[in-house]
Amino acid sequence: MSVSHIEHIGIAVQSLEETIPYYEKLLGTKCYAVEEVADQKVKTAFFKVGQTKIELLESTDPEGPIGKFIGKKGPGIHHVAFAVDNVDQALTEAEENGIRLIDKQGRKGAEGLNIGFLHPKSTFGVLTELCSD
Amino acid sequence: MSVSHIEHIGIAVQSLEETIPYYEKLLGTKCYAVEEVADQKVKTAFFKVGQTKIELLESTDPEGPIGKFIGKKGPGIHHVAFAVDNVDQALTEAEENGIRLIDKQGRKGAEGLNIGFLHPKSTFGVLTELCSD
Repeated sequence: MSVSHIEHIGIAVQSLEETIPYYEKLLGTKCYAVEEVADQKVKTAFFKVGQTKIELLESTDPEGPIGKFIGKKGPGIHHVAFAVDNVDQALTEAEENGIRLIDKQGRKGAEGLNIGFLHPKSTFGVLTELCSD
Repeated sequence: MSVSHIEHIGIAVQSLEETIPYYEKLLGTKCYAVEEVADQKVKTAFFKVGQTKIELLESTDPEGPIGKFIGKKGPGIHHVAFAVDNVDQALTEAEENGIRLIDKQGRKGAEGLNIGFLHPKSTFGVLTELCSD
């Protein structure tokens, strides 16, 4: 597989309202988009830092993936997303290399990207997303 | 503060020996350096992905920071490091903005960078490092 860069880092937060001003000050850049991803039960806020985005994730439902993550581990870094040429090909290749997948093929994620997750049981505890345009 | 890019992501692992081959395959790039940072009680392994490095961290002592982290939370993403022009200035500015610091001023980290950590109690659960050349 070939990864060109880190597309984004996903950070689970209790509240976008309180964390957006913190990241705007820390990074010296404005949040450029807020988007709800209904099927993931999150509201997201994006910042650009060089090649990589910071994606803040606020849960809209305690039973959603971010709600459960925060319930178990507290707020913090949730996942890392690597940019690949073609997410479907990359998922197939990962599976051939013995990596367990959450998504067998790409699906639409935030910002219209094609995304797929590898399972943290196969990735040494790191929830890992692959994405392509 | 102005951050130019994400300098690295630190990932706590049980064993460099088992995770280096995994990341080499996932990222399509070879580990370019292995380094021991004695005062942090870790052995580190580095990969370059676009502007950002992946820093794998294996504890050399269960009482060191990575040993404790893994004991509490298991292996996974440990911290994110943002590149700034001058780490001392950036730490001062962060403190003026009410952020609690782990390091009052920069100190030498892996790869000879000047580094300083913000306290996760002030950063919504994200252990945050600043670094400069």
